[in-house]
Amino acid sequence: MIIKKTFDESQEIVVSKKELRLFALNCLEKVGCSLAHAQQLVDILICSDYRGHYSHGLNRLHVYVNDLATNCTAKEGEPIILKDKGSTAWVDGHNLLGPVVGNFCMKLAVEKARKNGIGWVVAKNSNHFGIAGWYAQIALQHGLVGMAFTNTSPCVFATNSTEKTLGSNPISCAAPALNGDSFFLDMASSTVAFGKIEVMEQRGAKRIPRGWGTDAFGIETQDPREVLNGGGLQPLGGSEATGGYKGMGLCMMVEVLCGIMGGSSFGKSIRKWQTTDESANLGQCFVAIDPDCFAPQFSDRLSSFLAETRELNPVDPSYPVQVAGDPERAHMYMCDELDGIVYKKSQLTHIEKLANDLGVQMFKAKEISTTNLEDD
Amino acid sequence: MIIKKTFDESQEIVVSKKELRLFALNCLEKVGCSLAHAQQLVDILICSDYRGHYSHGLNRLHVYVNDLATNCTAKEGEPIILKDKGSTAWVDGHNLLGPVVGNFCMKLAVEKARKNGIGWVVAKNSNHFGIAGWYAQIALQHGLVGMAFTNTSPCVFATNSTEKTLGSNPISCAAPALNGDSFFLDMASSTVAFGKIEVMEQRGAKRIPRGWGTDAFGIETQDPREVLNGGGLQPLGGSEATGGYKGMGLCMMVEVLCGIMGGSSFGKSIRKWQTTDESANLGQCFVAIDPDCFAPQFSDRLSSFLAETRELNPVDPSYPVQVAGDPERAHMYMCDELDGIVYKKSQLTHIEKLANDLGVQMFKAKEISTTNLEDD
Repeated sequence: MIIKKTFDESQEIVVSKKELRLFALNCLEKVGCSLAHAQQLVDILICSDYRGHYSHGLNRLHVYVNDLATNCTAKEGEPIILKDKGSTAWVDGHNLLGPVVGNFCMKLAVEKARKNGIGWVVAKNSNHFGIAGWYAQIALQHGLVGMAFTNTSPCVFATNSTEKTLGSNPISCAAPALNGDSFFLDMASSTVAFGKIEVMEQRGAKRIPRGWGTDAFGIETQDPREVLNGGGLQPLGGSEATGGYKGMGLCMMVEVLCGIMGGSSFGKSIRKWQTTDESANLGQCFVAIDPDCFAPQFSDRLSSFLAETRELNPVDPSYPVQVAGDPERAHMYMCDELDGIVYKKSQLTHIEKLANDLGVQMFKAKEISTTNLEDD
Repeated sequence: MIIKKTFDESQEIVVSKKELRLFALNCLEKVGCSLAHAQQLVDILICSDYRGHYSHGLNRLHVYVNDLATNCTAKEGEPIILKDKGSTAWVDGHNLLGPVVGNFCMKLAVEKARKNGIGWVVAKNSNHFGIAGWYAQIALQHGLVGMAFTNTSPCVFATNSTEKTLGSNPISCAAPALNGDSFFLDMASSTVAFGKIEVMEQRGAKRIPRGWGTDAFGIETQDPREVLNGGGLQPLGGSEATGGYKGMGLCMMVEVLCGIMGGSSFGKSIRKWQTTDESANLGQCFVAIDPDCFAPQFSDRLSSFLAETRELNPVDPSYPVQVAGDPERAHMYMCDELDGIVYKKSQLTHIEKLANDLGVQMFKAKEISTTNLEDD
């Protein structure tokens, strides 16, 4: 049961994927990025917006652009396999764009899973790779279970600490159910993303829920301005009393699988977000598992499990129980109906600034006829 | 920096591991369990108490005893490998005691990790296997990174649902640092364990923190009695606003790796906790990874990461920042100093009842001299 999302003509516009692609490729060309690499980055940015993860889509194009423009990210080259044994490989990402490293590693993991049942590939020397779920989805497209993890710049306060030293270190896991359905988890190990607090504050909210963030001294706060002015995020669970130490444990587990295993920067040694004085040198981990190596009818059971969960009686009938991936499916469905990606008009200022800075023509919104809206 | 735990003579007793072992073996012999299997179960129960996870130690011996006495768990036999490919294996646990299945699977995963860099073994037809961290620790003892997962009887309400259909599905991950130190995560995917709420209520608490549990209708409550009277647990994060849907996602991810991958019971089809009308048929997943397949000096980096985290400035100087495994280390240190396992006197009533029911002689507390306490 998918909660349908509806298009709001007064607040939103629709842009065709083709327009978006051309715009983003033009921006990347301006800073000397090779076409083959730019295409990989643009694919994932558009996919993020399509899934409704706007914080990881076009909105972040300027970050990649800045890294390329300042030579903080390499514009050419290929990742290299440093070690290869059985189901595992260790890769040097050669400071290339995160998606170039990530696609390379996940494809390798998929090959290994086909041969040995599982592929486990860890990279060092990578960059921000966009939504982790993109890589899990590559495995999914091959009928495999996929998982991807990355470390990130510090933004999370360790439980009981006055310093933010941990990343929002995402965990993603995608598994194939029947008829194109899937279990699709893609989550930061913080309670919320920073962008969610920014949006709350922009909308004039004076209070955010407990467990989202802290002030600059690591004390939990419900004032969004305190979080945004030098504060930071809390690990999933919030404070110690409400299980935040578990979120911190998950966050550190991801770091163990990424920076510690990969030999990249880790923890507080990772450069600050959006700085370009040094390369990011992120660590990333990519896993593909062939479910056919275990009990037959994996997808049948998964479909039953998804169905039994979605069909649970909801506390409030207007909020049916959803499984990981359902909100994104609803968003993609809305975009498909409108044949493009839906953006808030308020998002455009940021992207227009990038267009102006680079001297690239801004993309055009699609004309949505009233008929279309009625159909929807 | 470890927060030292101190022994409280008025509330606690110390029992030698030898006494505990003899007692538990005698109980299991009474219900016809083979010695080899009983020893494996007893090792893990004592380890749980030693680590301070009393909810999974001697306190639960009666559950295993009941399963054996009613022939709900098989008393003899060995797990069997049903499929074996590269780094993976699928195992039929033959309804044996969980630790017998778990030890078998993790040893197989370790062998595969030695050969192919990683071992990923999934079992069906298993039973409650105690603390997940026990199995991660087996890999750790071989210098490997270990992970173990299991599904459990339903006790968690899916976000926005009126029914408890998900297990507390634990996630464990252990990784070797230098000089015997380690990262050691072993957590349920619910905010807290049921036992923690029982303890709060027994101590007269009228309120529990938000995010721990719900009443019988799935509504978050801060009244421990409502949780205990037909309510249930919330996934890590609590309600939807505080990130509970992420905990639910993790909980379902564990089910995908266990019941769905293993072909065991899953979700709400798993028998209710402590019922013996059918076998548990749990699914479990065991992973071992050889860090030498990736960047050299894994343990050096991990030690640096643990040190930088433990050395963070604490918000309150009396609560230093801890990493996963530190509270357990403090507990084990206390037990080592006292040369036995520390139990609350209030825990004994439950165990004495089991001893009486089975006609087994109760274990004896150690005499702790005042000198010992002063030394401590």
